[in-house]
Amino acid sequence: MPEEQIKTLSQAEVLAQIRAALAARDVPPLAELAEEHPGIMAAALLALTPAETRHLVALIGDDRAATVVEELDAADAADVLARLTRADAADVLEEMAPDDATDVVEVLPPAEAEALLIEMEPADAAHIRELLAYPPDTAGGIMTPEFLALSPNLTVEEAITALRTVAQEVETVYYVYVIDAEDRLLGVLGLRNLLLAPPGTRVGDLVDRDVVRIRADADQEEAARMLREYRFLAIPVVDAENRLLGIITADDVADVVEEETTEDIERLGGSQPLEEPYLRASVLDLVRKRAGWLLFLFVASAYTVNVLHYFEAELQAVVALGFFIPMLIGTGGNVGSQVTTTLTRALALGDVAPGDVLEVLSKELRVSLLLGLVMGGATLLRALLLGTPDLGHVVAITAFLVVLWATTVAAVLPLLLRALRLDPAVVSTPLITTLVDGTGLVIYFEVARALLRLG
Amino acid sequence: MPEEQIKTLSQAEVLAQIRAALAARDVPPLAELAEEHPGIMAAALLALTPAETRHLVALIGDDRAATVVEELDAADAADVLARLTRADAADVLEEMAPDDATDVVEVLPPAEAEALLIEMEPADAAHIRELLAYPPDTAGGIMTPEFLALSPNLTVEEAITALRTVAQEVETVYYVYVIDAEDRLLGVLGLRNLLLAPPGTRVGDLVDRDVVRIRADADQEEAARMLREYRFLAIPVVDAENRLLGIITADDVADVVEEETTEDIERLGGSQPLEEPYLRASVLDLVRKRAGWLLFLFVASAYTVNVLHYFEAELQAVVALGFFIPMLIGTGGNVGSQVTTTLTRALALGDVAPGDVLEVLSKELRVSLLLGLVMGGATLLRALLLGTPDLGHVVAITAFLVVLWATTVAAVLPLLLRALRLDPAVVSTPLITTLVDGTGLVIYFEVARALLRLG
Repeated sequence: MPEEQIKTLSQAEVLAQIRAALAARDVPPLAELAEEHPGIMAAALLALTPAETRHLVALIGDDRAATVVEELDAADAADVLARLTRADAADVLEEMAPDDATDVVEVLPPAEAEALLIEMEPADAAHIRELLAYPPDTAGGIMTPEFLALSPNLTVEEAITALRTVAQEVETVYYVYVIDAEDRLLGVLGLRNLLLAPPGTRVGDLVDRDVVRIRADADQEEAARMLREYRFLAIPVVDAENRLLGIITADDVADVVEEETTEDIERLGGSQPLEEPYLRASVLDLVRKRAGWLLFLFVASAYTVNVLHYFEAELQAVVALGFFIPMLIGTGGNVGSQVTTTLTRALALGDVAPGDVLEVLSKELRVSLLLGLVMGGATLLRALLLGTPDLGHVVAITAFLVVLWATTVAAVLPLLLRALRLDPAVVSTPLITTLVDGTGLVIYFEVARALLRLG
Repeated sequence: MPEEQIKTLSQAEVLAQIRAALAARDVPPLAELAEEHPGIMAAALLALTPAETRHLVALIGDDRAATVVEELDAADAADVLARLTRADAADVLEEMAPDDATDVVEVLPPAEAEALLIEMEPADAAHIRELLAYPPDTAGGIMTPEFLALSPNLTVEEAITALRTVAQEVETVYYVYVIDAEDRLLGVLGLRNLLLAPPGTRVGDLVDRDVVRIRADADQEEAARMLREYRFLAIPVVDAENRLLGIITADDVADVVEEETTEDIERLGGSQPLEEPYLRASVLDLVRKRAGWLLFLFVASAYTVNVLHYFEAELQAVVALGFFIPMLIGTGGNVGSQVTTTLTRALALGDVAPGDVLEVLSKELRVSLLLGLVMGGATLLRALLLGTPDLGHVVAITAFLVVLWATTVAAVLPLLLRALRLDPAVVSTPLITTLVDGTGLVIYFEVARALLRLG
């Protein structure tokens, strides 16, 4: 299937072509799809029956099957491997990058994981067992132990010969690491520098000894930040004695950034982040992730009932005051949501730091003065249209003040949390909305009491 | 300054060290900082005076200055270049990657941009002029024209010799592209395959002709998607005649993904996305980005006034009904925010597709039945605590129904928009909150009317 054709086919059409090739035992198109479009093949694989999956793996071989399975997330990959015999599943795991294989083993039931590791080649199983020792959210948890390492005493020519024998095995050959006899990291050498150097030069004379490295127990976000800042394709991971354990590549880090961004977004929306893709999360998972914040917000919003109870006399005297409550506190919530979302993202990107608090507040106050005038005017118009002109000034002034107040709360809270070294993303938009609801009501009734001479 | 030390210094300390080195004309620490920590140097550069900036660039040279300036966003980089003489600014631009230099030229006032291009080496200026022809959000707008291209007729040995002369100039030497005499792209060759092949082999025999490519006028998000899907380090960009124009590298795409994610997050919060970093956006920019949605939401929420006006008699008869309004519609808004945020992100990641609508709805309805029971119970408790037991059943049943209703609206809307090929991120959490406010009120008063036999 040529390039152009693949891209315009729907998933159902790709699946139909795969099934036709399976029925005809026509290996070349299947092999090509696995090699050139592993992502498309992976999506189709999920839709195959167990028997079809076994047939496909037998036809294309372990190596190509591994390339396809690597495209799946760990839970889907585990589902696919569960369709195979244990021997075949072990063969596919052996061919996968050890960091990806470890992620899959981690989600299997412990007994099944152990049985597969026993079935695997001892050397491949040992790699995975080493990686299993690191928590999944550390540098050690996302590294791969497949890297190129050389002694500093080799010549360039000897080094290139050595690399020829192993380069097909490892994930990234763009950097070569130089280590001593105790595996301690001495430096790094770009493959292109090796390629461009005179053949007789010693590797030790070419190596850059000022190499950026990360400890295996460091947070995975630190690894992402370093790769991003230095724009490297990979960074080496070392233990406390500076022994080289593995490398983290740019594509591993893209997954970390995506995961962390998803967590930030879910928190902003007022949920605890899910630990797995949406469709895989169970109903009870979703309930657990949402109920905590919902109940917390409920308790926080419960004081709105007391506020209104407290102003019962005013509400009784002028029932029309009640008509504007949802609109006024809604406007406050909307403004707060805009401000807190923008600032939380700016903090996550490093565009804003806690030290900028005065600049941010001064800017937001000027913005909110203008927006307050606009919303106050709109609210006045709404009151006049409803035929309640006697309330026009009360609701317009309240709208103006609520916009100012919501902006201040929503601007200060994320910066304050960051300054206290807490995650600013816990200031969700529902939290801001809830905080502004009750305080907005107090503003409303105090304005009404003063202007309508109610109290 | 050794590695460990740099990382523990605050920005103010780094700045003080730079100023001390400038005063002492001590080049080596400045050169090392520029080469090894360009990001840290770039942040410090912004805080220097124009005179200090000129002094620094003179000491470390154009090439290192370019490495540092490349770390800045385009607007900051333009500010820094504006501190230099035009000749020096042109020299720094010449040493920058052409795609980064083009981004800077794009934000300069047109007259200044033209003057700088005239001052630059004609070949470097020509590269930038070509890139300026592509809109910034297309593949052509983010590509770099610096790549390695060879004729298929060279031997491996000749190819390596040819690469030695140019490899220092180009951004990425990990892929070598093979082109014919009319610059048409024939295929790609990994540098490692070139390195590992017997020296006498023809390049044309090694090349992978089934090369993934992108048209210069394609959207930058398509380039990001392709690099991500295939896990390549770079993809070639071609024109309509398949002539190779440039390449897009993985780090260019990380910027695109970050930019698009920021836009999604700002839309979710109910703002039009900003086009520049927060601190650089003017007060009027922020007002413009927020006022449109605020006014739209205001109009959408204005019907809550009519709803309450319509139920004036009920509100008059039982003033205590009014006390629970903010809490009940707030709960609806919170649930809606959770659901719409989770689903919008799952759609953006491809975890959920419009075809999954029935699965999503069935899951969300089961989740909301459970959460509805929890929130209904909490609301009943709140009513009993307030001493309004006669309203307990009304508010509890309303809370249950509002959770169900908010979940349904928030689950269906993003999927519906995606199915209509609109961006689901326009369903902001404020929009859901606003929609649920008015309809929640109708539910509340209809329940009250029925159970309290009011109408």
